[in-house]
Amino acid sequence: MAKLLSELAAHVGGQIDGDPSLQIEGLAGLSEAARGQLSFFSNRRYRREFESTRASAVLVDAKTARPAGTTVVKVDNPQLAFARLSQLFFPPQKFPAGIDARALVHAEAAVDPSATVMAGAVVERGAVVGPRAVIFGGAHVGEQARIGEGTVLHPNAVVYAQCVVGARCILHAGSVVGADGFGFAFDPGTPQHVKIPQAGIARLEDDVELGACSCVDRATLGETVVGRGTKIDNLVQIAHNVKVGPLSLLCAQAGISGSSTLGAGVVLGGQVGIAGHLELGDLAKVAAQAGVGHDIEPGGVVGGSPAYDAAVWKRASVVTQQLPDMLKELRALRRRVEELEKQSDKGSRTP
Amino acid sequence: MAKLLSELAAHVGGQIDGDPSLQIEGLAGLSEAARGQLSFFSNRRYRREFESTRASAVLVDAKTARPAGTTVVKVDNPQLAFARLSQLFFPPQKFPAGIDARALVHAEAAVDPSATVMAGAVVERGAVVGPRAVIFGGAHVGEQARIGEGTVLHPNAVVYAQCVVGARCILHAGSVVGADGFGFAFDPGTPQHVKIPQAGIARLEDDVELGACSCVDRATLGETVVGRGTKIDNLVQIAHNVKVGPLSLLCAQAGISGSSTLGAGVVLGGQVGIAGHLELGDLAKVAAQAGVGHDIEPGGVVGGSPAYDAAVWKRASVVTQQLPDMLKELRALRRRVEELEKQSDKGSRTP
Amino acid sequence: MAKLLSELAAHVGGQIDGDPSLQIEGLAGLSEAARGQLSFFSNRRYRREFESTRASAVLVDAKTARPAGTTVVKVDNPQLAFARLSQLFFPPQKFPAGIDARALVHAEAAVDPSATVMAGAVVERGAVVGPRAVIFGGAHVGEQARIGEGTVLHPNAVVYAQCVVGARCILHAGSVVGADGFGFAFDPGTPQHVKIPQAGIARLEDDVELGACSCVDRATLGETVVGRGTKIDNLVQIAHNVKVGPLSLLCAQAGISGSSTLGAGVVLGGQVGIAGHLELGDLAKVAAQAGVGHDIEPGGVVGGSPAYDAAVWKRASVVTQQLPDMLKELRALRRRVEELEKQSDKGSRTP
Repeated sequence: MAKLLSELAAHVGGQIDGDPSLQIEGLAGLSEAARGQLSFFSNRRYRREFESTRASAVLVDAKTARPAGTTVVKVDNPQLAFARLSQLFFPPQKFPAGIDARALVHAEAAVDPSATVMAGAVVERGAVVGPRAVIFGGAHVGEQARIGEGTVLHPNAVVYAQCVVGARCILHAGSVVGADGFGFAFDPGTPQHVKIPQAGIARLEDDVELGACSCVDRATLGETVVGRGTKIDNLVQIAHNVKVGPLSLLCAQAGISGSSTLGAGVVLGGQVGIAGHLELGDLAKVAAQAGVGHDIEPGGVVGGSPAYDAAVWKRASVVTQQLPDMLKELRALRRRVEELEKQSDKGSRTP
Repeated sequence: MAKLLSELAAHVGGQIDGDPSLQIEGLAGLSEAARGQLSFFSNRRYRREFESTRASAVLVDAKTARPAGTTVVKVDNPQLAFARLSQLFFPPQKFPAGIDARALVHAEAAVDPSATVMAGAVVERGAVVGPRAVIFGGAHVGEQARIGEGTVLHPNAVVYAQCVVGARCILHAGSVVGADGFGFAFDPGTPQHVKIPQAGIARLEDDVELGACSCVDRATLGETVVGRGTKIDNLVQIAHNVKVGPLSLLCAQAGISGSSTLGAGVVLGGQVGIAGHLELGDLAKVAAQAGVGHDIEPGGVVGGSPAYDAAVWKRASVVTQQLPDMLKELRALRRRVEELEKQSDKGSRTP
Repeated sequence: MAKLLSELAAHVGGQIDGDPSLQIEGLAGLSEAARGQLSFFSNRRYRREFESTRASAVLVDAKTARPAGTTVVKVDNPQLAFARLSQLFFPPQKFPAGIDARALVHAEAAVDPSATVMAGAVVERGAVVGPRAVIFGGAHVGEQARIGEGTVLHPNAVVYAQCVVGARCILHAGSVVGADGFGFAFDPGTPQHVKIPQAGIARLEDDVELGACSCVDRATLGETVVGRGTKIDNLVQIAHNVKVGPLSLLCAQAGISGSSTLGAGVVLGGQVGIAGHLELGDLAKVAAQAGVGHDIEPGGVVGGSPAYDAAVWKRASVVTQQLPDMLKELRALRRRVEELEKQSDKGSRTP
């Protein structure tokens, strides 16, 4: 299982400064690494850990000097190189093809012979499960839903009827694709909230990862879409008719309200909220816990609730802490000005 | 499947301005609609889309003039009319009555013969499943729980033991009714958090919709209640002993802490937090991401974290962005006042 | 089922002031209690309810006087005493040992004979289920995962492969232990977010309670850990490589980003967010909805987003509401100072 450092370096196009004949037995963080392991250093915050690591070799960027007694592998992007090497050491688990006798697969479902459907998985009528897809026990593929090639549904992930999941997607446990959007019209006569049927679908493009207990609602009409290669953390809410562009990152517990559109490469921090019917341009970034109530132009960076320019928000946040002092100062100044005005008034009257 | 416009108009009590003999094949949003489709216009923000829509007919309110070349149907409430027509076009799916052989139904459960219990559904001892209820695979009805007439439990929805779900409710995938409330008493001796048994139940009244991965905890003693016709979005948390009144709307990722009471027709925006032991009066409205720490009187509208009057909050939020400038101004003023004081002092001494 | 008050008092080391021969039939809140029931009074906010309760007896602290016509039981900690008595009245449900014929247990799993595995539960290859553990239908124990003695997995709780759950834990419905952490490295060449394999595990120590739909991600390398006796509410997110110390309380919808470390006895309010790579010292407290971006020292109490000292935050929050008035005042002062400066200037020129 050990791998030669020179081979690992070649795999990521890195230059070795040190001993290329090292045998690498595994990967570890800088502080946890033992002899024989490879680590990486990309966040300056961990310089001390880098300098005291026991790792036999460390992936670093071109500008980082080799500490005495260590071997480094210089690469353009240490984190990316670490990801690629980690994929060598931890290849995805393979599952035997076939439908378990205790899986609950409808006779009219189309499961590719190379797919794995485990005991307790449910695949309903008309559903399609693509080549090498993996459906864990308790996962649910609704009527006429389609699961792409190589996609994994972890235990208890649910894809509602008619919804579409692309190739190489990962749906973590408890995630839900295609539940009804939250759409009602109030009838004051009855009175009741009349349900607007959610007759559209939800569609995940290829290479999407959806975190545990995250929800992508089906559209009222048409489609809710998560774009190619977008990664979604746990407990995220994506409402009906939202469009998320490709290669976006949505951190845990973020929520996007109905009909909003996110461009490519958008980043939402944790617990961010996006109001409905907005447009966030390509590469927009939203700081954690921000609440976005207006469109964001491409490349815009915002923070705060309600959200505005992040640089201003950071300064304003610091000032917020001084508000009690500011109020005190303001009152003191008012008194001093009143005093000055009295004197000035006296002065002007005296002569 | 196409329907005559005059019949659709009659169904919602609307007046046609244009061609009543149109054949309507489906519904669509203003921008997506094609010839032969019906749309609706109720949000002024979409005036441009309304004026350029290709829909053959559009539901509008009484005040909206018909654009040239379009047919409009005038109704009191275009969104409500759209909901009713949408229900005509997309009636709820019917499922064959009966218990699938691969459903896991306890011998001592009482399932109405008209109910549908699918493969992989679990119905435990003493549970009652009402007429025409639908229990999807992976959904779970605990011991002595009761599911009302026509209620649907989507895949992997869970109703804990003894809990009660009314008629015509919809529980989306992964929703949980009746998990233990978060109640502990700290014992510094051991030390440990001693669990307070959560011996009450959770009860959803009729016509409640509960979104995917939303949670309604059981009461410590007594009941947690969600009132008739209240609609709850995804990933919402309702803690033990909360009472939510009828016809409320709780948007995604909102949370209500223990023992708080919401009146009728309350609206919580997304990601709202309500502290424990509070009362929110009828028709109270809470803006998205607000954090409510005090009671709200009937009809009150609040925003902010901590929350206060929404109108003031909106003004204050705008000013927040100017805080760095305000601080600068305050310091400049202080210097100017000091200067004036010096001069005034000099002035009063000089003569 | 009724119990003698003197015996109940003895069980919690309490002193009866009143009638020790009362027969207690059950427990209830102060307002709901009927004759024959026992209640408790610990929150001063409920004094009125205490004074008008119909409970036959009330647990109170040493300082609380007995109202006329009531019996009180004086204890050090009424809430703790109530918890202990409640455990007498509502002992945890017992389940018959054994594996249901319709459970989906792999031949190579090791299930203790005293454990209960219900119909529809999944236990995968190499998994270990300890003595008296209870696995409900739809719950999932992944390959080589380990479930400790007396631990309960409620319906549809999921423990991923290799993860470890200690003794006497409670995992509520829809909770997820060990889904992949959110780790990617961006490759601008392809472009794509390259997945960093999440090759570590998640581990819950003994006596942990995990709320419905809460998620504890597995580590990238090493372990994500929730310490002994820590209690976690619903819809909480715990990211990869987080360490939560023992006896902490994490309220609903809180989220902790990757690699942060919480000490012992930490309390996070509802909807709190903790950024990544931080340290929160023992007994740190974070107010609801706060967003923590810096380390917190032991015993520190913070609020706000971004968070700072809670006492200052409370004062600043009050002032925030006065911001529009402050801005108006500031502008008025500026005009008055300008006027004074003009006069002063004139005055200094006049002579």
